[in-house]
Parts: sequence; structure tokens; C-alpha cells
Amino acid sequence: MGNAWTPRNADYAAMVQGSFARQTLMATLGVRLERIAPGEVDLGMDHAPHLCQQNGFLHAGAIASLADSANGYAAYSLAPAGTDVLAVEFKINLLAPARGERFVAQGRVVRPGRMLTVCLCEVLAFEGTHSLPVATMLSTLIIRPDEATAAPR
Amino acid sequence: MGNAWTPRNADYAAMVQGSFARQTLMATLGVRLERIAPGEVDLGMDHAPHLCQQNGFLHAGAIASLADSANGYAAYSLAPAGTDVLAVEFKINLLAPARGERFVAQGRVVRPGRMLTVCLCEVLAFEGTHSLPVATMLSTLIIRPDEATAAPR
Amino acid sequence: MGNAWTPRNADYAAMVQGSFARQTLMATLGVRLERIAPGEVDLGMDHAPHLCQQNGFLHAGAIASLADSANGYAAYSLAPAGTDVLAVEFKINLLAPARGERFVAQGRVVRPGRMLTVCLCEVLAFEGTHSLPVATMLSTLIIRPDEATAAPR
Amino acid sequence: MGNAWTPRNADYAAMVQGSFARQTLMATLGVRLERIAPGEVDLGMDHAPHLCQQNGFLHAGAIASLADSANGYAAYSLAPAGTDVLAVEFKINLLAPARGERFVAQGRVVRPGRMLTVCLCEVLAFEGTHSLPVATMLSTLIIRPDEATAAPR
Repeated sequence: MGNAWTPRNADYAAMVQGSFARQTLMATLGVRLERIAPGEVDLGMDHAPHLCQQNGFLHAGAIASLADSANGYAAYSLAPAGTDVLAVEFKINLLAPARGERFVAQGRVVRPGRMLTVCLCEVLAFEGTHSLPVATMLSTLIIRPDEATAAPR
Repeated sequence: MGNAWTPRNADYAAMVQGSFARQTLMATLGVRLERIAPGEVDLGMDHAPHLCQQNGFLHAGAIASLADSANGYAAYSLAPAGTDVLAVEFKINLLAPARGERFVAQGRVVRPGRMLTVCLCEVLAFEGTHSLPVATMLSTLIIRPDEATAAPR
Repeated sequence: MGNAWTPRNADYAAMVQGSFARQTLMATLGVRLERIAPGEVDLGMDHAPHLCQQNGFLHAGAIASLADSANGYAAYSLAPAGTDVLAVEFKINLLAPARGERFVAQGRVVRPGRMLTVCLCEVLAFEGTHSLPVATMLSTLIIRPDEATAAPR
Repeated sequence: MGNAWTPRNADYAAMVQGSFARQTLMATLGVRLERIAPGEVDLGMDHAPHLCQQNGFLHAGAIASLADSANGYAAYSLAPAGTDVLAVEFKINLLAPARGERFVAQGRVVRPGRMLTVCLCEVLAFEGTHSLPVATMLSTLIIRPDEATAAPR
């Protein structure tokens, strides 16, 4: 890690923000776009009573949704204009029950590619000033021409 | 696959239903418990405008939440009374964009264990009478004594 | 599963055999190509004293090598002539210690693609006439133009 | 990362060395134990003609075997005496063809547990003084009482 990646789109932040704003699941989960840098995206969300598993902790699916989008946008921040990003697959380890007031997913590009990008995400749970890692996700993303911005069909 | 598993709790269906009813994320996603058999649970949900990614398809996180719960309850259907189930980790391949009116996740136990259970889930997208696999998930679940039903501490 | 895939190369079996014969790790592990059908490849190997972990069972890495090649060749059996196959990533669950005399990995295509193919492999351990699943692998493979058979550069 | 873990066995290095020496696959692959610290194990190996895939690069299975053992011993370095370590599952992304003279797998504990430990491994390929990441593995390991050192049965 600790890499300094060079974006291929000078407007990468606006590109990420525009796509994120269209992901309605992010609004349903209350996810905030907290940080965008080349190859690095942090997403945050709060604990909420409509997103829980059977014991009142955040559902693993909510954590996975947060981390999947963080990795997706970390990859997308290095993509050229006129492209879209999709997850090919991801793997998540739940390190501890998702107990906390607030959660932050830190998506980081491990290896960018013209087509396939690999990202790693750490999800931290915050309780007051204390934080604890609750999940790690390793993802493969694909960068494709964006059908929405492509020439009319 | 095609195994016939023996439940360790005669009331396995009620145990699964009770836990599922406490998962508030399932209500948020509109998930229905469609089938429970020993080691086999099917969960269904409809496409909905508040669960999408940037192109209007179901978000990979919604698909993963559906499949994670299907695998979790498939594992839980074989667990003894007085236990709880948690995902240790899962891996999902998104086979195609989650285009469709309705989605069904078929969670199946591959190998039950006293402590760790491995499950495989296929997620199908339905458009009218046509169906297509859109995701495959391979999960590790842990069965633990249920803190809620444990003796008072 | 239970799909009937159509090969894009009529000589798919020879293509698979030729590539398999060049994988020197397969000879080191004593792996045999036991079955080739469109989208389905079975590889077998015997327990051997030079392939073990600390308790004398087959090392997880040997099981993973077997399953990775089975999935790779299942994918490759559906590829056009003049291409090569590489693993993008794989995930393996070790279901039980790899105790047995003989092991068979059954690689199966779940979803073929022009570029990315997803395969699932079950690894069985045989002891006399008794068999037991010992591992499940879910893989993403990429099909690319074969540099060796490409026009001189 | 960057954690300082406390070993539960003062003789953790000898415990790791003893187990590694019994893994005959490591000798077959020519793997060296290059570094042991609490929660951190580096394993090295050279390119060799008997460990290749169809293009003469190191087989993904050899890379996976190296990384699986590095993660396993990173977990084991934090385990109490009288225990054994086994992989529950692992997921590996192959970032680039395993081209190189020498390979080093750096296994690191992400979250230690009494029973389940999660590790992350980066595999680097070296060509002279130049190095490049070629794989990332995320693993779940289980620590169990060692049957070999258990009371006589």
C-alpha cells in the first residue's frame, strides 16, 4: 500500500461523486462519501435500526454494501472518463460483530489495470473516539465503457 | 449437493423464522422467506428503486445481503436449539448485472459442522417466466450459543 | 450446474491436453487429466509423501493447485482456438483434512464469458470405495489471446 | 497492519520452525522460512522449472501454496503451545503473471482470535533488485489442540 496512483481523469472526484449520487442503495443505507483521492475512497455510515441482523448489530450485508462501494469507487477514481465500474467479485471477512455508532470503509487500490482492478477495503467501527476493524474485503472490479455516456444506440 | 441433512432441532423452521423476523435489514430490502427445509433456505425479493447501483440495477450489496442471509439460514436450519449463526466470511461472484423484476437466493449447506458450516448460494433473476443466474456465493458460517437465550448472567 | 455448454473450438480436448502437458507443476504433483467435456474437467492425483502438511495430510496448497487447474481447464474447454487461460482469483473452502488415497477435482463452468468465466470445483477424497468432499473452489478465469500462438511481433 | 501482537508461546519461533519442517510440500517447492516475528512470517522460494504453468511462469497453485503457508504460520506464531493450525479457507487474487527469479510471501495477522484468525499475505516477485506484487491472499485459519502433542489416547 502507500502507493501514489495517477488518475487518468483530471475530474475523477466529480466522476466518483456523480456515480455515487445515482446509487440509491447508498441513500437507503445513509452512506456518506467522506474522502476521495486517486485510488482511495472512504465511505461512512451510522448505525441505524433498519439495517440490523438478529442481534441488533449492523447486518453483514450492510457492511458488505459499504465496503463494495468503497472499493468500487477507489477503482473508479483511477478510470478514464466515459467509463463505468462494476464488481466482478468480492470476498469479505467479518472480523467482529459490527457493534458501533459509526462505520468507515477505506477502499484502496492494490493493483490498477486497464480492465481489471484489485482493491482492498478495511471497515472500522467507531464508538466515541475508539475504533476497531470489523471487516476486510478483497475485490475485483471491471472498468467498462459507460453505456449511458456512449454514443446513442 | 442433493444431500439430505438431518436437523438437530425439530423446530428448525420456527427457529429460522424467528431470527429472520428480527433482521431489520431484510424488511428494508423487502426480502421474503420463501422456503425452509433442512440445510436449504430460499429468500426472494423484488427490484425496488431504493436498492440500486448507478445504472438502475440492483446493487451488488443488496444481492450480497440476500445471499448472505440465505446461506446463514440454510446453516442455521441444521443448528441445535439455543444457538445463533454468524457469517465468518463470504465470497460472491457477480455473474451478470442484476437486471430483473424478482430475485431468489437459494442457500444450500455444502458441509455442516458442529462449529463451522460451509454453504453455497445461487441467486437467480426472474423477468416474467425467464430466469438467469446472476450471482454465486460461497460462505463460512459459525454456530454459537445464543447469548439472548443463554441463562441470565 | 447441469448445463450443456457448446465448445467454440471443435478440438477443445486436444487444446486442453496440450496446455495441461506444459504445466510442469502437474507432473510434480502427479496429476492426471481424467475427463474432458465442454465446460467440465476432472483432474485426479494420489496422496504422496512429498506433498503433505505438518500432519501427513495433503497440503491445502496441493489441493488448491489441483482445483485451480481443474477450473482453469473447464473454462479453457469452452475457449476459442488461439487463446490462453489464466486465473484472475480463486477462493477455496477446505471442508475437512485432506485424508485419503486419491483425490479428484471436478471443475465445472458456472458462467462462461467472452473474457471472464466463473467456475466451481468440488474436490473429493477417496479411501477405497468411499468418497468425501474435502474442498470447494469458486474461481474467476480470464481468456486471452495466446501470445505463444500469436503472430510474430 | 502495523500491529504489535503479543505471542502466547514464548517459544513461538521454534514452534513455527518445527511445524514448517514437517510440511513436505515446502521442501518440494523449495520454500525457505525467511522471517518469523509475532503475527508475521515471510516465506521465500525461487522460480524452478518443475513448478510452472503452461507459459513457464510459476503456477498459481505454487504461489497459493507459498501464501497459504505464510498466512498459516503468521497465525500460528500467536498460538499457544500444544496447538495446531489449519486453513479454513483462503482467497487469492493473482495480480500479474508470476514472472521473476524469486518470490516472497509476507503473511500478516489482521485479527487474531482464540479459535479463528484472519491473515493477509502479499506475494512479491523479485527480478534482480526490482520487485512487484503478484498476489494478495486473505485467509481464515483455525487454531486447534494439537493431536500429536495431546495426552496419549
